[in-house]
Amino acid sequence: MQRIANLLICKDNEVLLLKKPRRNWYVAPGGKMETGESIFEAAVREFTEETNTVPIKPYLKGIYTMVIEEDGKRVDEWMLFTFVAKDLEGTPFQETKEGILEWHPVEELHKLPMAEGDRTNLLFAVHEQGIQYGTFVYTPDFTLIKETIQYSLEGKVNNG
Amino acid sequence: MQRIANLLICKDNEVLLLKKPRRNWYVAPGGKMETGESIFEAAVREFTEETNTVPIKPYLKGIYTMVIEEDGKRVDEWMLFTFVAKDLEGTPFQETKEGILEWHPVEELHKLPMAEGDRTNLLFAVHEQGIQYGTFVYTPDFTLIKETIQYSLEGKVNNG
Repeated sequence: MQRIANLLICKDNEVLLLKKPRRNWYVAPGGKMETGESIFEAAVREFTEETNTVPIKPYLKGIYTMVIEEDGKRVDEWMLFTFVAKDLEGTPFQETKEGILEWHPVEELHKLPMAEGDRTNLLFAVHEQGIQYGTFVYTPDFTLIKETIQYSLEGKVNNG
Repeated sequence: MQRIANLLICKDNEVLLLKKPRRNWYVAPGGKMETGESIFEAAVREFTEETNTVPIKPYLKGIYTMVIEEDGKRVDEWMLFTFVAKDLEGTPFQETKEGILEWHPVEELHKLPMAEGDRTNLLFAVHEQGIQYGTFVYTPDFTLIKETIQYSLEGKVNNG
């Protein structure tokens, strides 16, 4: 089961996105968790490798089960962990082998081309408190077939 | 990569723990995530199956990479997701095929027999705000060899 961690910087009303060459769709920078890492370490390492910058105080915003279905059959499944940070150290690459890094006003998350589940997740990450969970089912060409979403907000444990 | 979700109820200064028969070690009730589920759904389903109760407003407290090493080689690896809830609906089973369910004062988490990484994680879950991440490396008989821990607290994104 592959695990992908990505990280969205949301600073001064702008977000740092990676435009991938294949469809010109936007994603938050990230990549595959490696054996023995924690998911936090994976998110920071992948973000740093892809952008040449270090995120400041990242925190988790979402955990998603991603499923590809073809002809009613599940053909792939992985987990996606989305982090946010409000600041970063360093100057991002402009272009990498993964695509082009661009700052966009946060409200453009509503309209930039991207997978529809990613839009749901990134909008949650920048606008809402707490953590979102869910399952997104896509066709092989990333048309969203179905989504189910849950949400949690940390409660106060009074006996700590 | 197996993914385990567990859930600790912490209510009225007591926690609900499962005493496993093999070593009489204590754990939070939980079990394996199934294909297509979200991790939130897995935690609630497994907790409900093991206790016959429904957790109220659970929220995530930790994500861990668990590694078993033998003779310096990694022989197993899985992920553990720990949730907390402050209340539950229903009356827990007293005994299940998995072990005996017992309420204990929260401070007994410091001394009840359990894997040392589990102690670290459950104490964090009941006492601290935010989310803990980390990697725990054990021998095959669950002696803790090494741990690395990270932590995050949600920041305020000012442009939401």
